[in-house]
Amino acid sequence: MIDQALGLAALAEVRAIDALTRRFPRHADQWNRPHEADAELVRLSALGPDTFLAATIDGIANEWSSGFYKDAYTAGWVLVQANLSDLAAVGASPLGVLLALAFPPGDSIAPRLSEGIADALSACGVAALGGDLNEGPAPVMTACAIGLVAGRPVGRTGIQPGDGLWVTGPVGAGNALAIVQLLGLPPALAPEAAYRPKARLVEGQALRAIAHAMMDTSDGPMSTLDHLARLNGIGMRIDFDPARLCDSAALAAFKAAGLPAWPLLCGEHGEYELMVAVPPDAEGSLKALVPGAVRIATATAESGLTLVLPDGREVAYDGQVIRNLPDRVQGDWSRYASEFQAYGTSLGLP
Amino acid sequence: MIDQALGLAALAEVRAIDALTRRFPRHADQWNRPHEADAELVRLSALGPDTFLAATIDGIANEWSSGFYKDAYTAGWVLVQANLSDLAAVGASPLGVLLALAFPPGDSIAPRLSEGIADALSACGVAALGGDLNEGPAPVMTACAIGLVAGRPVGRTGIQPGDGLWVTGPVGAGNALAIVQLLGLPPALAPEAAYRPKARLVEGQALRAIAHAMMDTSDGPMSTLDHLARLNGIGMRIDFDPARLCDSAALAAFKAAGLPAWPLLCGEHGEYELMVAVPPDAEGSLKALVPGAVRIATATAESGLTLVLPDGREVAYDGQVIRNLPDRVQGDWSRYASEFQAYGTSLGLP
Repeated sequence: MIDQALGLAALAEVRAIDALTRRFPRHADQWNRPHEADAELVRLSALGPDTFLAATIDGIANEWSSGFYKDAYTAGWVLVQANLSDLAAVGASPLGVLLALAFPPGDSIAPRLSEGIADALSACGVAALGGDLNEGPAPVMTACAIGLVAGRPVGRTGIQPGDGLWVTGPVGAGNALAIVQLLGLPPALAPEAAYRPKARLVEGQALRAIAHAMMDTSDGPMSTLDHLARLNGIGMRIDFDPARLCDSAALAAFKAAGLPAWPLLCGEHGEYELMVAVPPDAEGSLKALVPGAVRIATATAESGLTLVLPDGREVAYDGQVIRNLPDRVQGDWSRYASEFQAYGTSLGLP
Repeated sequence: MIDQALGLAALAEVRAIDALTRRFPRHADQWNRPHEADAELVRLSALGPDTFLAATIDGIANEWSSGFYKDAYTAGWVLVQANLSDLAAVGASPLGVLLALAFPPGDSIAPRLSEGIADALSACGVAALGGDLNEGPAPVMTACAIGLVAGRPVGRTGIQPGDGLWVTGPVGAGNALAIVQLLGLPPALAPEAAYRPKARLVEGQALRAIAHAMMDTSDGPMSTLDHLARLNGIGMRIDFDPARLCDSAALAAFKAAGLPAWPLLCGEHGEYELMVAVPPDAEGSLKALVPGAVRIATATAESGLTLVLPDGREVAYDGQVIRNLPDRVQGDWSRYASEFQAYGTSLGLP
């Protein structure tokens, strides 16, 4: 029973994906199993023993329709970065991006969307290979990023007790934007125009040599740690100190508004940093490769997530509570907001 | 002025794509230019001089929301086949498919959609590599297919006057389904369950060696010929004989209902056959490789499309009239239906 509650099957999203894909044929040369890497990795046997195709597909749907993003530029920017970030998390070199866009007739978001896509691609030095433009009842923005990995790939598994978990930069900017929206707070608290995450492609390629596992924080830092813990059958002892971990602008704005900081870490709208697990003897190399990296947790043999708060208190954190909220509330975002707040409050998070 | 009217720029869809993608960075090793291949082709320089990545992305949007497909199984099936068909048209060997699916909370289409996807993949012996599952305001079904081409790739350009244009099988089944829907005819005239197009992967790989150009008929046979003519700066003399070209079941049903057959060829909902241009001395090889192939046209130095009707009459066909209808009617499908019918009737098509 405990294994079930701590494993991936406790997550409604994982169960939905497994039910949907149960009968899909798999590729004999695929390196990763489902849920076990940010991008799909397929050995290109014909091209050498250690060359892998890396590919991922990701779309913007709710973020636009529910008004998290008000400017289509943000949607275009994040669409590109989200896909490139998945390549970064397996240490791939990008070949390019494909885009599938659909709008209702007469919709006017195309120009801003196009600017956001173009700027995000240029910022990362990645090409648009092509795509598909269609009409549809609501805007659809989907992209696929393709890359290559030469040498040993890295996925989400392979973490050992004692490994250090690091993020490649401060976290929380993505959640700041989402929470301001969710709670109807003044938009100036987290300006949308400041949310321009950038896929950590260079860092991912550099860290591949020393990482036991990598995963991007697209679903927020705590969800990422929870996923890695479940997948690896380990626990995490998390240094839950927002002052040390969080984006300084987001933190200052939340503090000035009298808001707690924990939602910046526990929300599910991420910032596309990489969460990297390295053995203790590689933590020095990690800091040398990514000077802005921040240590967030230590992997433990005992399962479950333990938050070590700044006041020294230790709190057991059940990742599935917030991660299963979207399934529980079925689109009722005000219920999502209240249940989200209730969980952090019940734990006395700072 | 004539060049403008005959070129790709006469097409609203092409202008919209060009406006949207104007600032997107391109890849120096991309083999094809925009609009010039069904799948994007990128030389994998590191892996040998003649290995190309082939990738395409395509979604189902209007076909579902407007009720062309009533069974999500069809949407899943066509989603997979549409993408694999683009790989077929460049002669690629598929590595696999990625899927991005989103549904509104509580939507119940997932099981049938999943069955259609699984069966289509199994029918083609292709793997699902992975994907993304999301919530969204309306169902979104997007897929990306990835493959490899070893040797000379084939795109949509390279057609010479005198080349024979062939389809790899009878056409019109896709348009039968769409027209029955569009005109509100009895569904039994074109049962949805019978519309199970299959990407011509084997044929595409075999024909690559002899083809000057290939393009699938996903937008209908006449739109495909129109596109190839505009792109290659040539014309087409088309043997416009529905009895010889069309799917026999669709033809018989339309005849029994007193409907003309020309919409089976001129509509924009295709059947995923390959349209293949071969030089005259390779037409014998083509027939040997694909015994069911049907000759549809001859490329001409003089531009424009000329239909040679069964009664011997010759009719100039302006492909942009029907191809620009979606842009003209802006979602008004009853206007689409009447303008579509008016054009064929004005030409006296059979």
